[in-house]
Amino acid sequence: METFFNPPSVAIVGATEKPGSLPGIILKNLIDMDFQGRIYPVNPKYKTIFGLTCFSSILDITDNVALTVIAIPAPLVLEVVQQQARKQIRHAIIISAGFREMGEEGIAMEERIKYVARENDIRILGPNCLGVLDNYTNFTTSFLSWERVSYPKKGSLSILSQSGAFAIALLDLASQEGLGIAKMVNYGNRLDVGESILLPFLRDDVHTRVIAIYMESVDHGRRFIEAAKSCSEKKPIVALKVGKGAAGIAAARSHTGAIAGNYAIYKAAFLKAGIIEANGLEEFIDGVKALSMQNPPKGNRILIVTNGGGFGVIVADHCSENGLDVPLPSPQLKEKLRNKLSAFYVVSNPVDLTGSACDQDYHTALNACMVESDEYDAAIIIPLMAPQGMTEKVVGLIADTMTRAGKPAVICTVGGAFTLKIKQLFEDHEFPVYPSPERSAKAMSMLLKRRQLLEGVKRSHHTRTLR
Amino acid sequence: METFFNPPSVAIVGATEKPGSLPGIILKNLIDMDFQGRIYPVNPKYKTIFGLTCFSSILDITDNVALTVIAIPAPLVLEVVQQQARKQIRHAIIISAGFREMGEEGIAMEERIKYVARENDIRILGPNCLGVLDNYTNFTTSFLSWERVSYPKKGSLSILSQSGAFAIALLDLASQEGLGIAKMVNYGNRLDVGESILLPFLRDDVHTRVIAIYMESVDHGRRFIEAAKSCSEKKPIVALKVGKGAAGIAAARSHTGAIAGNYAIYKAAFLKAGIIEANGLEEFIDGVKALSMQNPPKGNRILIVTNGGGFGVIVADHCSENGLDVPLPSPQLKEKLRNKLSAFYVVSNPVDLTGSACDQDYHTALNACMVESDEYDAAIIIPLMAPQGMTEKVVGLIADTMTRAGKPAVICTVGGAFTLKIKQLFEDHEFPVYPSPERSAKAMSMLLKRRQLLEGVKRSHHTRTLR
Repeated sequence: METFFNPPSVAIVGATEKPGSLPGIILKNLIDMDFQGRIYPVNPKYKTIFGLTCFSSILDITDNVALTVIAIPAPLVLEVVQQQARKQIRHAIIISAGFREMGEEGIAMEERIKYVARENDIRILGPNCLGVLDNYTNFTTSFLSWERVSYPKKGSLSILSQSGAFAIALLDLASQEGLGIAKMVNYGNRLDVGESILLPFLRDDVHTRVIAIYMESVDHGRRFIEAAKSCSEKKPIVALKVGKGAAGIAAARSHTGAIAGNYAIYKAAFLKAGIIEANGLEEFIDGVKALSMQNPPKGNRILIVTNGGGFGVIVADHCSENGLDVPLPSPQLKEKLRNKLSAFYVVSNPVDLTGSACDQDYHTALNACMVESDEYDAAIIIPLMAPQGMTEKVVGLIADTMTRAGKPAVICTVGGAFTLKIKQLFEDHEFPVYPSPERSAKAMSMLLKRRQLLEGVKRSHHTRTLR
Repeated sequence: METFFNPPSVAIVGATEKPGSLPGIILKNLIDMDFQGRIYPVNPKYKTIFGLTCFSSILDITDNVALTVIAIPAPLVLEVVQQQARKQIRHAIIISAGFREMGEEGIAMEERIKYVARENDIRILGPNCLGVLDNYTNFTTSFLSWERVSYPKKGSLSILSQSGAFAIALLDLASQEGLGIAKMVNYGNRLDVGESILLPFLRDDVHTRVIAIYMESVDHGRRFIEAAKSCSEKKPIVALKVGKGAAGIAAARSHTGAIAGNYAIYKAAFLKAGIIEANGLEEFIDGVKALSMQNPPKGNRILIVTNGGGFGVIVADHCSENGLDVPLPSPQLKEKLRNKLSAFYVVSNPVDLTGSACDQDYHTALNACMVESDEYDAAIIIPLMAPQGMTEKVVGLIADTMTRAGKPAVICTVGGAFTLKIKQLFEDHEFPVYPSPERSAKAMSMLLKRRQLLEGVKRSHHTRTLR
């Protein structure tokens, strides 16, 4: 698999300097990103492209080539694969669309390519895809311009996606949410390489700590579950399964030719494989963000601290909806809070510091409840920045106190420009911020889910030992 | 009620120039906003405040006063209300916290105030609230600085909220979502004036077209249903009911002293009253935005047009989840689309224009499906801006085509800075934009819900006529 992410040499088939041409943009992106492998543009029409020697066919390249990137009309792809078979190039990323997703004729073309690949031991990514982005080797086959898509910072999130548009949207969202990227793979019609092969690779990838999968269907049921299970024991996997109802299933078929299948079976498989399932794009990125920034809580006893009572109420509602407990503080803890906080603050759960709250009150409440007491496993903290007593110092105070507590927290805050600045500061401290009560409660429940899945894994190991 | 929003004269009790003092900020806000009524600061310690003559008590003001704004410690409020009774001032907004939400003693204080108010025919808003913002008279009693809270543009959304923090968050969100505000009312503990009195007032308010209500509890069950029903026949009402589960109910009680009661009863009441219910803050603002910008569709047949197949699949899934139908185009319509669009675009529902889409393709697809055909009632349109063929011209093309169709549309798009610019342009054309597939489908379902509620009202009128 390594070759797909860090090829020592790559041929870009169909490369031109024409603006808007896909292989041209791929080539330009590689040059702009300062990719260090050797690059061979292939196009019979040109002698040089962007200053690189251009070859009329891959057969004319005298050096070894590790990978071909093919972005030419679908009917012409087979011939290139046949050529690379003769030249013993063992990897291809087929960007071109117009295959399985178009119906019978496209399926037949794919089958012919698959046959040649199998006979000649060629691994294929795609077709109908963006291919890969490796943020540590600076290799990408994306044909989108980085002027339109946020170039992600280096980080620990890796993305597997059947959908290219979705993979790109995730890159944009990751940038907005302060998440760095390790690898992105979009395999589209998944003629060969899919989740079952990529997951073990990502399990052992040093840069990857969290994995996000967008799936319409799965490449191989049993192998996928095994691969995901062995991977999720080491790293959290969050999946967004789409193509659930009749309309979505039909849409998935015309999108990547995927047979989305029975959703109930997927749900059961996710549970078995230790995968955390998200419902919708926001839950997907929210869960990934929580798992990237915070550890799972030891239990489900959640403290809510707020300076906007209404927000505390909605978070409490959504905690209940998501299986999180919001227990009242013990009389002793209540007494302690009562002594340390203003008389008209509400000492309960939520702790309501009211519109009169100042930064230090957050420290006081969290220190008493999370550091000095063991009544809570995690906190949902809601610092609304509209009141005058709130300044950016609240970020450091909350971050320090929660770090001292050694318990996870997620932040909910809503507001304009000043609030966005605060969000940024929290996320620099690896505390995930959500713009609504319901999303913060859901994200916390996904952190807890990770704990439950890990314990399920531990229990099943234990059971095996006992037999 | 008018006096609460446009008092010819107002006394600000407790006013000072001290930074951070609530009555001081209220006074300063009124001066900064160029409120045109007469303003009387009241504080025995000063002769003038911000250049205005200051009175040592409201009894010393020789002119008529229409409204008092009281933001002094809770135990001192009763005396002011007694004074205003003597001076026959018929309206008071009590900002001060420290009443019912603090338990028995606070309840007793409220009861004494209530008694004096009843005996003397005084209407009271609050206590424990921000009071009002009228964006057309420039009157507000908010004690938050407009440096921290987005000052909303003039518009047609009015907000009723038990929670102050929530009301402020909605002002910020409305600004971010391109929505203008008519009136905001936050009544906190709701000693007197509540939803049942405010809804008929907003029904007849010329500036209000859509009403958003945050409620923990309701002032008077039967009157509320009647008021809301008569209001919702004219204007859409979206409600966020919080305090649903045990944890939320407890939180609501310590927030505004509200008895949140049985959620099932609220659900039934909302249905009866023609209220559209939202679950969570985002659904609340999303529904309000859709209803503010677009008309309800005539039916539930939804067309999806996308240039990112995966997004089409998720929207289709979430349409199904929300009772929206995603019917395939007829053979005739399919044929027409096939002839007008590139061969490898997917002509189905979703119409998938793929990563090769250009602006004009959106016009072509929407014109054939929405203008020239009557197979769909509304569209969810997903213009992803990463591909090169997409420019800002797509906004005008989509807006014009949908306007010609006379059918509603919502937009879903995800991305970085360029996408945010596109969002702004769409919202300038009154097309609501959502940052995720699930939210766009949900918002469309709330538009449809409005149609269903209106038809329910029509049917029940009809039934009555028949008897």
